[in-house]
Parts: sequence; C-alpha cells; structure tokens
Amino acid sequence: MTRVACWQPEWVTSRSHRDEFLDRLARIAAGAADGGATLLITPEMSATGYHLGRTRTAELAEPADGALADGVRAIAERTGVAIVYGWPESTGEGIYNSVQLVDADGTVAARYRKTHLYGQVDRSVFVPGEQLVVQARIGSLTVGLVVCYDVEFPETVRAHALAGTDLLVVPTALVRPWEIVARTLLPARAFESQLFVAYVNWYSSGPEGYCGLSAVAGPDGRRRADAAGIVGETLLFADLDHAALETARLATTYLLDRRPDLYGAAR
Amino acid sequence: MTRVACWQPEWVTSRSHRDEFLDRLARIAAGAADGGATLLITPEMSATGYHLGRTRTAELAEPADGALADGVRAIAERTGVAIVYGWPESTGEGIYNSVQLVDADGTVAARYRKTHLYGQVDRSVFVPGEQLVVQARIGSLTVGLVVCYDVEFPETVRAHALAGTDLLVVPTALVRPWEIVARTLLPARAFESQLFVAYVNWYSSGPEGYCGLSAVAGPDGRRRADAAGIVGETLLFADLDHAALETARLATTYLLDRRPDLYGAAR
Repeated sequence: MTRVACWQPEWVTSRSHRDEFLDRLARIAAGAADGGATLLITPEMSATGYHLGRTRTAELAEPADGALADGVRAIAERTGVAIVYGWPESTGEGIYNSVQLVDADGTVAARYRKTHLYGQVDRSVFVPGEQLVVQARIGSLTVGLVVCYDVEFPETVRAHALAGTDLLVVPTALVRPWEIVARTLLPARAFESQLFVAYVNWYSSGPEGYCGLSAVAGPDGRRRADAAGIVGETLLFADLDHAALETARLATTYLLDRRPDLYGAAR
Repeated sequence: MTRVACWQPEWVTSRSHRDEFLDRLARIAAGAADGGATLLITPEMSATGYHLGRTRTAELAEPADGALADGVRAIAERTGVAIVYGWPESTGEGIYNSVQLVDADGTVAARYRKTHLYGQVDRSVFVPGEQLVVQARIGSLTVGLVVCYDVEFPETVRAHALAGTDLLVVPTALVRPWEIVARTLLPARAFESQLFVAYVNWYSSGPEGYCGLSAVAGPDGRRRADAAGIVGETLLFADLDHAALETARLATTYLLDRRPDLYGAAR
C-alpha cells in the first residue's frame, strides 16, 4: 500500500522568491508525513506560479539542479516524503515546463518536460519536451510523470500503461470552464488504461479561475480521493494498492484486447 | 442539420423469426420518419437478440445480402429513413458480429464487422473483423460504424476522427454494472476526438440486465440526447449540426496538437 498526498494550493499570481515556496512546501510536506504519505504531489509550476508571461517566466527559470532543486531535496530528506514539483526549467535549448520527482532520500529520481504544449500560454514561453514516458519507483508502484494537457491525450496514458506505469502523476493548472477534463477525461483515462491517475490542480475563485477538482482515479473507475466542491487550499490523501490494480486488470482486459494491427494512423 | 433517431428497445432473449423484427422495425422507422429523422440507429444484434450461444446464433445467421437485408432495405425505401441494424453475418470464414447501414434509397451504404471481440460471449461465437474504419455519407455528415466494445478503445475513435468521421454510430449491448462505459467513456470519446458519438443500447431490468443509457454525445462534451433513467423502450431524437463540430474543433484542438512522433507502441 502506498499513501499519496495531493496538495491543492490557492492560486498565487507569482511567487516573489523561491524561499516563499520552500517555506510553504516544508510545512505541507511535514503535514503529508504526519498523515502517513510517502509521496507528495503538487500542481503544474507549483514553485513559481503559472501563466506568468515570457519575461517573468525567464526571470524565475532555474536549471534542474539549481537552488530550487537543492531546497526541495532538503525538504524531502528531512520529512522522508518523496515530492513532485513543477517549475520553469532553464536549459541551453530554451525553457521547459518541467516537473521533477525527488525521492525521500533527496535524490532526483525522474524529470519530465511537458510534451503537449497548450496554446499560446505555453507556446509563447516554453519549448516542448521530446520524451513521453519518464518513470521512477515509489514503494511497490511504478510512477510516471506528465503535465496537465498531456493527460488529455489518450495516447499519453496508453503509452504509460504499456510501459508499466501503475500511478500516473499529473501536476496541472486547469481553469474554468474546462471542468470536463477533471470530471470526465480523468476517470476515463484511469479506467481505459487500467492504472491510477493523480490529477493535482490549483484552486482560485472566479469564472476563469483555477477549478480545483484534484482527484485520484482508479482502474476500476472509482475515485480514491476527490477535492470536488472543496474551496480553498486542501491536502488530499489516497491509499493506492497494487493488488487493486491486478484485480481491475483481470476484470477489464483492455490492455490485452487492443488491436494495434488495425490502428494505423491513430498513434 | 441532420436529425438522428436512436431506438432503445426492451431486451428480447431471441426473436423467433426475422419477420417479427421487420414488423417492429417498420413501425419504429415510421415513427422516426414522423419525427423528422433521416437516420435510425438500433442496438448491437438488433435483428436477432444477442448472447444467444453458438447454436442459436448459427441458426439465425444470414449473409449480408440475405432476406433480412432485403426486408430492411424495403423499410428504408418506404419510410425514407436510413437504418443501422445489427445481426450475425454468415460467411465462408465464420460468423461476424456485424452492423449494416442501409441508405434511404434502399442501398447498402456500409457494412462493419466488430473488430474488438468481447470475452467469451463474442469469442465463442464470432470471428473478428479486420477493417477498423468503415464510413458512409448521411446528409452533411460522414458517418462511421463500430460495435459496442470497439468504442471503449480510444484508438478506435481516434482512427475515425483522423479519417474524417463526424458521427460515430455505436450499436451496443452494455450490461450492468458497466454503466461507466456509457456515463464516462462515451462523453470522453466525443470530447477527446472531437466528433459526435451515438451509443444505442438495449434495456432490461435486473442487476445484470442491459442498462439502457443510450445517448448522443457531442464534441463540446454536451449530450444531445440521453436516455438516462428512462425505463423500457424509447426512441430518442438528436439534431447534429456540422457547424457545431467546426466550432468545437476551433476551441479544442486535440486533433492538431497530438504528438504522434512520441507515441511509439501506444497505437
């Protein structure tokens, strides 16, 4: 059994300094540890805020092994909780919309760069990642990382399922009125590709605000945790059991019954 | 604008004779014509009943141009309504789980053989079809045909969207407790592949009975027709507008934003 914690924070326009995020993360990670979680998931661009524009994003961008990473690694090591966080990753090729999984011993276990960029909000700022499947091991589960818009493509989740991902971690920044993604696509992905999907969003009020609805969906179609209707910041916990995956996959044999010989261009 | 009618009949264990089905279909098609529909969709194996076992299925099987087809063609021609119906198709290679679209002038416009066979109920009786995408034209819409379990695979619907299908017609026979397919996968398919999907099921009472829930889902995530909660036989109507497809595809650009270069084995 692996217990995961999902942090649905209230929206911030832009953090003034990385220390503000690290202070906050340290308190949240301590709460996750107290609750028995071994993995803490935070939203897309959790370290800096999102939708900042080119200039501000470039100011906040850091390499994958910069001061932000050092700060998160120290928190993971101190609390004993693995942490997924998002930030603008500066590289020689440009800035990526990245997430990183830091293990409970403080090592970086996996890094993923968003491959499906969403509209001008992403395309005006980021370059696209070129590796779809990135995985690490947490307890008994093989964990995969993707970001927001990536999960809206069934191909992304199918590729993870075929590569052995048990839990797909999806930091996101979903705004109203696109609640259909959280309410319909999220459980569809978990059911049709027979894995757990943790979808972790920001929350803010207002008609175009971030809609929350963070949830962990299971391969049997049941939600293990669900922030539906919760206003403001919350920390959700979900217990994920490898045996439940195996039971679901025996009942629903989509992964065995595919006809890849017929799919042609649908890839 | 194309108006479609979806016939959700009460379950029959097995029709005693094709004339019983044709009499029924003639009345339903007349009702569809009175309601202004130009296309009538009926469930999986609508002509014979489903889950009949090897012997009874073989007794009821007919070739695609047999007496059943002649009867349906006459009804389509008389009522001016195109008709999709399902039956066990006898061929030299075995029996297929087939559906056929008969145009309003009585010609057979498309025939599809179920490619994703479901469990022993299908595999003990049918051979699998080998062509995934079959299309015909009804009014301003390109119509595709698949059967039941086929639509549960996102690859099926994606292949249709990429081939230009506007309305995917899905005769089905979905039993309880798998309502998640109708309630979650159906709207997910329409939204993620940006087309209309008409899912037309049987109804019967009882915990393992056919769950109804016939519906037409749109590319914007809205349902155009929905038999949720309707007990017993019903005829649903839905108006499908090509302009609504174009509007949705401008707002939600999944078909343009795919990364097939990265999907690898996820096909």
